[in-house]
Amino acid sequence: MAKSQSNPRFHARGRSRGVGGAEEGFALSGRIWVEKEGETFLGWGRVVLLERIREHGSINAAARSMGMGYRHAWDLVDMMNRLSPKPLVRKVTGGRRGGGSTLTAEGTAALENFWALVDDFRAFLRGRDARIWRKRRKPRAKA
Amino acid sequence: MAKSQSNPRFHARGRSRGVGGAEEGFALSGRIWVEKEGETFLGWGRVVLLERIREHGSINAAARSMGMGYRHAWDLVDMMNRLSPKPLVRKVTGGRRGGGSTLTAEGTAALENFWALVDDFRAFLRGRDARIWRKRRKPRAKA
Repeated sequence: MAKSQSNPRFHARGRSRGVGGAEEGFALSGRIWVEKEGETFLGWGRVVLLERIREHGSINAAARSMGMGYRHAWDLVDMMNRLSPKPLVRKVTGGRRGGGSTLTAEGTAALENFWALVDDFRAFLRGRDARIWRKRRKPRAKA
Repeated sequence: MAKSQSNPRFHARGRSRGVGGAEEGFALSGRIWVEKEGETFLGWGRVVLLERIREHGSINAAARSMGMGYRHAWDLVDMMNRLSPKPLVRKVTGGRRGGGSTLTAEGTAALENFWALVDDFRAFLRGRDARIWRKRRKPRAKA
């Protein structure tokens, strides 16, 4: 899954239209996340954790694959499940390795919806001029 | 200037359309900033610092008004001036208090453009459904 490998800080270059030299190299960057009543519910790190849980079938293995402490991973999963109307991760019992964890339908939807938001956000960043010091022709209305 | 008083983390509520109860309270949040070749050039804190410099006519007084160390403020101004094609802040000599600092035309443009970007970003956040766990009717294309 290529997306989970990439850097949590992402940006889209604010390429100038026909302007080069000293004005190149500027980029608008940003981050987005979802809050529930002021608490972080879902951001980049948690979404990657969900992806890894889906991939590895286990919270501990998912944490290990990210270099994250498993206690921290369990706390994050617990928090996501608590804040969500329906849990995003559930335990599975039995199977070859005697149980583990998997995503619920809501967890899978959360992944897909988050990446769709990120795609939209990238388009937003890309569509705007990062040359912030430039005077605009059209002045902003005072009212 | 009301904007400089508000919280650096801002969000727009992802109000559901006719769905209430447990699904309320979710909001999409985010931050944006401008980078120059990987270095932060201008973000929320620096923009507020520029506003305060314009207001107080002095980097030291601006820093004091924000509870920011003046050495840190000078470093930030230095960095902004260095990364920008033209300086955003310049020294003024003479005057009632024997000199200080003020914004250049580019500094003023940077302020206005940043707040315009923030307005756009708020509209972006507000326009999207923060109920991230919801399954969509329309599946995303595999290709």
